[in-house]
Amino acid sequence: MSKNLNLSETAKLLLGWDNILVISHVSPDGDTLGCACALMRGLSQFGKKVKFYCADEIAGKYDYLFEGIELEDFEPEHIVSVDIADKELMGKGKELFGDRVELAIDHHATHKPFAENLLLDIESAGAVEIIYLLLKEMGAKIDLPIADCIYTGLTTDTGCFKYGNVTPRTHTVAAELISMGAHAADINRVMFDSKSMAQVEAERMILETLEFSCGGRCAMVKVPISVLKKTGAKESDLEGVANIPRQIEGVILGVTLKEKDDGVIKASVRANPPANAAELCSKFGGGGHTGAAGCSFSGKTMSEAAGAFLAACEEHLKGLE
Amino acid sequence: MSKNLNLSETAKLLLGWDNILVISHVSPDGDTLGCACALMRGLSQFGKKVKFYCADEIAGKYDYLFEGIELEDFEPEHIVSVDIADKELMGKGKELFGDRVELAIDHHATHKPFAENLLLDIESAGAVEIIYLLLKEMGAKIDLPIADCIYTGLTTDTGCFKYGNVTPRTHTVAAELISMGAHAADINRVMFDSKSMAQVEAERMILETLEFSCGGRCAMVKVPISVLKKTGAKESDLEGVANIPRQIEGVILGVTLKEKDDGVIKASVRANPPANAAELCSKFGGGGHTGAAGCSFSGKTMSEAAGAFLAACEEHLKGLE
Repeated sequence: MSKNLNLSETAKLLLGWDNILVISHVSPDGDTLGCACALMRGLSQFGKKVKFYCADEIAGKYDYLFEGIELEDFEPEHIVSVDIADKELMGKGKELFGDRVELAIDHHATHKPFAENLLLDIESAGAVEIIYLLLKEMGAKIDLPIADCIYTGLTTDTGCFKYGNVTPRTHTVAAELISMGAHAADINRVMFDSKSMAQVEAERMILETLEFSCGGRCAMVKVPISVLKKTGAKESDLEGVANIPRQIEGVILGVTLKEKDDGVIKASVRANPPANAAELCSKFGGGGHTGAAGCSFSGKTMSEAAGAFLAACEEHLKGLE
Repeated sequence: MSKNLNLSETAKLLLGWDNILVISHVSPDGDTLGCACALMRGLSQFGKKVKFYCADEIAGKYDYLFEGIELEDFEPEHIVSVDIADKELMGKGKELFGDRVELAIDHHATHKPFAENLLLDIESAGAVEIIYLLLKEMGAKIDLPIADCIYTGLTTDTGCFKYGNVTPRTHTVAAELISMGAHAADINRVMFDSKSMAQVEAERMILETLEFSCGGRCAMVKVPISVLKKTGAKESDLEGVANIPRQIEGVILGVTLKEKDDGVIKASVRANPPANAAELCSKFGGGGHTGAAGCSFSGKTMSEAAGAFLAACEEHLKGLE
């Protein structure tokens, strides 16, 4: 169990430290990186040496977050994790530092305590909201690079202020950051309106597989592994495509079938009421929530998996009538 | 010329009126409709009779804005236009009411005065920001339906807070509306994450036409009129697709060629520096801005137009070397 800290206790703790390692989670996104970079910049203002760790490679579009931070080489005396809900999400870092994290700063309701101290605020849309309040509490100056880091986490974790996790405070923080000159429109263009050629090619191939069934109430796309191989797209490039089936009017079951390296077919289901994604996926040993769930097929080809899944969809929708 | 009013003068004017007609612009969007519905709701609170006019049909997704408004039938004594930058944008309404508009409320820097009185604020990201301040000035209660109307205009006119027109005030207003319970996530889902089957089919057909040239610095998509006919998609359904070419990394000239009913081919160009969309389009008698411009081709087939335009793109990009 971690000791729960409030903002002022956390600020005091950090101000007493030096030689600090900050850790982001694997598959790093704008929130975990925005947190890390804003925190390192703030700590530097107090003359502290900082160092960064993430088990995975950082996409080039995040380079600006790190610009000008003096990352030093030292044996860390103190370790802070940001936006990490579970020790497992440190990836390789778990073995290296998993038992030595002195402070976890997080916003996930599902947080599994692993650090000595925990600053948790599940009301924060992005974990950067906590970092922003913490830096102010520490007396750090929210300069323009810090404002850009915080804004990046806010906008990426909310789908550009689109989702239900946005609170009045999220918008209030955004207003303050833009007042300080944060490059909001530029950041949003990079995060939301920029695609690689490989990504566009892959999306085109995936859209060609779109099929409707059950009288238009079910839509399915297939992502054979060959799409990634042919286009050079990465799995993370395809997150947007998986949302397409459920965006279509009249569709209450949106299904994405993805072939993995090992031949396993993963089904991701998004459902609108009265359809129930968890109930549907449980037929194949999977699970999740009413609105979003998943399951896997081993030893089946893509078209066998599609056939089996569509039959289950039909049965599920009939059961609702 | 119009007489320029401030918020308090406008509030006084409206409070002295009754039997008021509110007009939205043609091709009605979330901002002009959000303005009209919020204003009508506010006026109703003071016992005033209201009526609405828009020359074009309103898409079904906007129905909730009008829910519960008591639209009455009367010969209007006073006429207000909202989010209308130019009399021409009243469509058929111009002949009916064009010379009788007593108050125009707008946020376009390009506003061409046509009304007796004008409340103009070009700092407002959505014209709804002005309506929000005006309703508060009038002493109206910002109830939940009004909050939803204002939020709708804010989010649609800013691409969900994505664009450079967003100011700190935009976010501050959004924060206040969400505090009041505005259905932000639901509204965003309807406005940004919902597509018709026809739209998805059309997008798929258009993506198939995507071609790169000039070493990947130019990307072009073609929209033959047959795409609309085959899929049943409307022109307004395809606005998103026109953005795809310029979203691709490395592309500095994104071109969309659209065939119109009359056989004319319209080119829309989006350019990133150093490419210059206006300069390129001027070669074909078109114009616009550095970043966005257009031109037309008559008496040419789609592939002839594409050939001519790509040759010009190549020349333009060579000229930059």
